[in-house]
Amino acid sequence: MRIIVAVAGLVSAQKLRLSAALAGHEVGYVDVQAAPDQARAAVTEAEIIFGNVPAGWLAGATRLRWVQLDSAGVDAYLGLNAARPGAPVQLTNLSDFYGRAVAEVALASILAFYRQLPRLMAGQREGRWVKTEVEPGVGQLHGAPVLVLGTGAIGRRLMTLLRAFECEVRGFARRSADAQLHTLAELDAALPSAAVVINTLPHTPETQGLLGRERLARFAPSALLVNVGRGSAVDEAALVEALDAGRLGGAVLDVTQVEPLPAASPLWQHPRVILTQHTGGRFPRESEAKIDVFLGNFARFTRGEPLSGAVDPSRGY
Amino acid sequence: MRIIVAVAGLVSAQKLRLSAALAGHEVGYVDVQAAPDQARAAVTEAEIIFGNVPAGWLAGATRLRWVQLDSAGVDAYLGLNAARPGAPVQLTNLSDFYGRAVAEVALASILAFYRQLPRLMAGQREGRWVKTEVEPGVGQLHGAPVLVLGTGAIGRRLMTLLRAFECEVRGFARRSADAQLHTLAELDAALPSAAVVINTLPHTPETQGLLGRERLARFAPSALLVNVGRGSAVDEAALVEALDAGRLGGAVLDVTQVEPLPAASPLWQHPRVILTQHTGGRFPRESEAKIDVFLGNFARFTRGEPLSGAVDPSRGY
Repeated sequence: MRIIVAVAGLVSAQKLRLSAALAGHEVGYVDVQAAPDQARAAVTEAEIIFGNVPAGWLAGATRLRWVQLDSAGVDAYLGLNAARPGAPVQLTNLSDFYGRAVAEVALASILAFYRQLPRLMAGQREGRWVKTEVEPGVGQLHGAPVLVLGTGAIGRRLMTLLRAFECEVRGFARRSADAQLHTLAELDAALPSAAVVINTLPHTPETQGLLGRERLARFAPSALLVNVGRGSAVDEAALVEALDAGRLGGAVLDVTQVEPLPAASPLWQHPRVILTQHTGGRFPRESEAKIDVFLGNFARFTRGEPLSGAVDPSRGY
Repeated sequence: MRIIVAVAGLVSAQKLRLSAALAGHEVGYVDVQAAPDQARAAVTEAEIIFGNVPAGWLAGATRLRWVQLDSAGVDAYLGLNAARPGAPVQLTNLSDFYGRAVAEVALASILAFYRQLPRLMAGQREGRWVKTEVEPGVGQLHGAPVLVLGTGAIGRRLMTLLRAFECEVRGFARRSADAQLHTLAELDAALPSAAVVINTLPHTPETQGLLGRERLARFAPSALLVNVGRGSAVDEAALVEALDAGRLGGAVLDVTQVEPLPAASPLWQHPRVILTQHTGGRFPRESEAKIDVFLGNFARFTRGEPLSGAVDPSRGY
């Protein structure tokens, strides 16, 4: 089979490992950023693609049977099969891949917010002992009521960690046994009593604008909003207004509507906003772990078995 | 009985609560910082003191029977009964009081270190999208081997939280069923394989200089040292040398040998050091919780029962 590998940043040892495991197949490595024309031509011939290429290129890949994304997000590929004749392309993502890393960045930032780390780090940089000015603002996560929107790998991992802090954790998901809240009405009723609200939901037509002006108005004035899902879920103008009006305690944003965050955004300099610049998914030996996932799925593919992390492109999950 | 309250920062409602609960006794409120002469005179007559007064004042308090400190640290009071004639003064501290808060500041800083929050926050302040320069340095706490020195309230709380991250957690304490390591030889053998070493031990003659030059040399080059115990445990000159020589990954210090940290200390500006300025013990409604502890112990005291948080001043624990 003709397999195109478009994962960015693979080193030689990783390519050697892939090529050895895929011996007998035609394997090509492309660099979407550095050599897009060559990459696009290779994609046109591919039966299998490992990695994220521009979605628009896929319409021309008439022999394509399977795309293994190397992301959890599938936003760009939602229409993959809509305009294709013939058998649909299978789409798989790294849905269970980023749970631990993203849960850690969420918890790092929540604890940083409660323990006033932004002010302590600013004091440190300026060589100032700010202990007494910072202490009155210190909060505590222990025992706090927390809502987790989405009960996928990230949401479930977060719920486990938050329960170690003896938080009162409730999950929101339409169809999940891990969730206690299943409807928007139930979510809206729960919002005013939450100390922390964490969005882990993917971008879908249903999650777009989920945390808009009206829903943000239901948050407690001291509440912390955490978004490690997708930037499209949050109305950023309404968020800044709520922060400035004292109707929201703070925000932790790993994702924003536009990334990189535009220079003009008031989020950059807001004293109660922590921006983690979409680093949430990173973890050590990540490329090796991606190769593990692909090779496991490749074995299933060749045996005609269901693939791990299969996504319906028409729904986005 | 004559009771002197020296807890700093009590507001009127808190004093009213104390006075009502202690009705029938002579209760005086003193301010050690603002009115030291008046405070010292009142201490001389006290039978019970609630709060921390200069240890040197206590020799003159001939009627003194019990001191309820409002700190976990007892460093200053180690010689309390050595020079006293007659019955020894009972000493109680808030030993189980700060476990949750200090565990949270430790975990906040460990996760901040792994998730590169100091660099992300610097980037945010400068309005710079630093995602790609920061990402190669991102680490992961999940599954890491962690040593916790001390298995008191803070150590035990940390061990519970770290186990939720599926860390391989081992505790060090001479006499504790919660510890796996009981001797310095066992500690030294375990140090090279630890990703994180967290000191929670109090200041005692035995813990002074525990993490000196030779012991720091046993740490893994990527290891993170966390000190939320007492600054006297760590040789700071050796710590900076180890960091600069690439023999230590980083340090999180809630406590330092001298506090406030002197302006000349190289720890202030070190890129791999996080200073939390001894804010670790702070948590919301802390004064109310201190009053709860004191009143609980006062009821035991009047009934002649053993006090909670009793410390042997000759040992320090």
